[in-house]
Amino acid sequence: MTSVVGHASTSHTTAPDWPRGFASAGIAAGIKKSGAPDLALLIGSGVGSGLDAEELSAAAVFTRNLIAAAPVQLSRAHLTESEGRICALLINSGCANAATGADGMARAVTSTELLAEALGIDSRSVLVNSTGVIGAALPIERIGSALPALTKSLATGSCDSFARAIMTTDTRPKWSTRSIHWMDGVTPRHCTVTGVAKGAGMIHPNMATMIAVIATDATLTPTQLDGHLRSAVDCSFHRISVDGDTSTNDSVFALASNCAGVAPTEQLAMAFDAVAQDLALMVVRDGEGFERGIEVRVSGARTSADALQVARTVAMSLLVRTAVTGGDPNWGRILAAAGRAGVNFDPAQLRVSAGGVPLFADGAPVDADATAVRGAFTADSVRLELDLGMGMARDVFWSCGLTKRYVEINADYTS
Amino acid sequence: MTSVVGHASTSHTTAPDWPRGFASAGIAAGIKKSGAPDLALLIGSGVGSGLDAEELSAAAVFTRNLIAAAPVQLSRAHLTESEGRICALLINSGCANAATGADGMARAVTSTELLAEALGIDSRSVLVNSTGVIGAALPIERIGSALPALTKSLATGSCDSFARAIMTTDTRPKWSTRSIHWMDGVTPRHCTVTGVAKGAGMIHPNMATMIAVIATDATLTPTQLDGHLRSAVDCSFHRISVDGDTSTNDSVFALASNCAGVAPTEQLAMAFDAVAQDLALMVVRDGEGFERGIEVRVSGARTSADALQVARTVAMSLLVRTAVTGGDPNWGRILAAAGRAGVNFDPAQLRVSAGGVPLFADGAPVDADATAVRGAFTADSVRLELDLGMGMARDVFWSCGLTKRYVEINADYTS
Repeated sequence: MTSVVGHASTSHTTAPDWPRGFASAGIAAGIKKSGAPDLALLIGSGVGSGLDAEELSAAAVFTRNLIAAAPVQLSRAHLTESEGRICALLINSGCANAATGADGMARAVTSTELLAEALGIDSRSVLVNSTGVIGAALPIERIGSALPALTKSLATGSCDSFARAIMTTDTRPKWSTRSIHWMDGVTPRHCTVTGVAKGAGMIHPNMATMIAVIATDATLTPTQLDGHLRSAVDCSFHRISVDGDTSTNDSVFALASNCAGVAPTEQLAMAFDAVAQDLALMVVRDGEGFERGIEVRVSGARTSADALQVARTVAMSLLVRTAVTGGDPNWGRILAAAGRAGVNFDPAQLRVSAGGVPLFADGAPVDADATAVRGAFTADSVRLELDLGMGMARDVFWSCGLTKRYVEINADYTS
Repeated sequence: MTSVVGHASTSHTTAPDWPRGFASAGIAAGIKKSGAPDLALLIGSGVGSGLDAEELSAAAVFTRNLIAAAPVQLSRAHLTESEGRICALLINSGCANAATGADGMARAVTSTELLAEALGIDSRSVLVNSTGVIGAALPIERIGSALPALTKSLATGSCDSFARAIMTTDTRPKWSTRSIHWMDGVTPRHCTVTGVAKGAGMIHPNMATMIAVIATDATLTPTQLDGHLRSAVDCSFHRISVDGDTSTNDSVFALASNCAGVAPTEQLAMAFDAVAQDLALMVVRDGEGFERGIEVRVSGARTSADALQVARTVAMSLLVRTAVTGGDPNWGRILAAAGRAGVNFDPAQLRVSAGGVPLFADGAPVDADATAVRGAFTADSVRLELDLGMGMARDVFWSCGLTKRYVEINADYTS
């Protein structure tokens, strides 16, 4: 019997372990002025530790922003040159190394060379990313000085220190894990999918960056891993928005240590999807100024693309988002957002409800119970449902109320 | 010699007159609970007043929102049926008559019938629009009761009472006017283009609606008028954004009384464009929670569409808008918004400046004078310039800083 066992961890739980075949570390290298942890390393646990582990299979989804940061450009190149065989992932917080020109690229390259030397590996088998202040020079000498302590503290097990060292304005570390159990003939087997993320909270003084790392001990070729990662990202990170901006550094990495054998594909896909969705929702819920979530489910669309487009437009509407912050059943704003989404539907067929309470049908307002409506709009996460009445396709998008605190955090900083 | 003489009026000036051939009125009909003026009427001044005037040429640009309000649907039909020959425009504030189904349409029809009866005209020659609460029934009996007083107060001259009666959360009436002088042989001639608008401030409790009316005494066929209106709307209202939402009631009407003869086309187009741009910028500057304007000028694009797309994306980015509110030279956010606009360009060729102060060039930050940069970001309107370095096309888009007050106005209302 195959089963997926969920451990959707939150900040109230202890950090889960990385899957077998990984070791990680997270320390303070002095990149952040605060002295908080700011340098994180994840490796195949054989590398530099004397254990007998393979290189990792690797895949990544990077920001589509034309202004991609130097480490994103470098990681893209390393992933291609190594054909998805990677030994280490190095992430720093406190400095994004974005919009830094040729000097920024040189510093990113140096960071991979220094780590490669410390671990005795090829620098092209190192992936890197950075998150923090944009336009500032990466303090490569601090990273170099910190590498001995970083590699020395590498340990298998908990993802805690890694998850904390990639945080920026996140108020808590974010992690999630799932286990899969199956029978290989008469032998019981299992594997794990564990992910960590840092949120899209704005970085003092500049950019929102989202970084996630999903690791598994299942045996997967880089191409198979890439497939799992892309479908997981598509149903999670591609369906959330805090502020509609895509940063220069956004990245989701996937690594497989290939220790656990070939897991059942369907269950592994479910585990990747679940971990990615957990992390994506944690990112939204820890977004700057977060007070209340929004979940928009669109059904009855002609195509999935139509459903997604309407869901995204409603979820990202500033008027819907401010109404949700106010706990205000402003269903007119929901209609107006749907109507401008660029998707053709017949308003007379449209049905809108919130938390299951009907609000609009047959082209006119439903005379709904005011207490029930208010309850739906003051839930921790407001669930808006739109049935377009045009077909069978459906999709979902997550966002959050737009708050004064969001504006405050993003406006009141003076650089 | 032909000349266009500008009178870009603001709230500090006296309201300009409507062009010749128009009469207007604005009174309180009791639709708004506050008792403020809420019913506005503009007619060809021959209608019902004994003066010898023609019907008006009429054109309109309506919201593209699928969920168009009943009066918008009705006005669309009347404009088509009358082939652009209209006698009166009736606008109420305080109730949007949107998302009101068949009953809402019946009430809109009744309002045109009541007015037609009062003026002795065909109801299909009446255009209507409504702005205010969505989903509420139009108080047609109040409108009916107010019509005698409304028609009795019709007067040529000032647009003041009309401009005030269409206001909702606007803090001031909005008007603009231009005159054109030309020689018809040896006879000096002139005509006027006068416009009024109400802003996209949110209506308690529901919708942003923008309504503008542009009137001229120049002689124009409905088709010619439509042409002037569309190009004017394209360079003005289609290039501003307060919150990215398009309401169910947004409309721009144009009316020509044909009293002044045929004006020079080029100058008339300039006057329409100027009046529409004045009104559009007044709408932005009176947007809810307005503190500071944003003007994004993109040059060096391959196509105009590319330039507009980048300008709009930067101007509407929440991160750019909050930075502007904070007076914060967060040029990284400008780059990131440009980079995700979906327009292909080479970041190494990109040049970004603010108020003429260079910020980014040759793929790296410019070491700009901090005082000059701060001055550019604390101007009343922050002027952002992006040269994509890809071609010769350019465009512009206007927006405003996103403020806590905006969120407050739109969230803290409880319906």
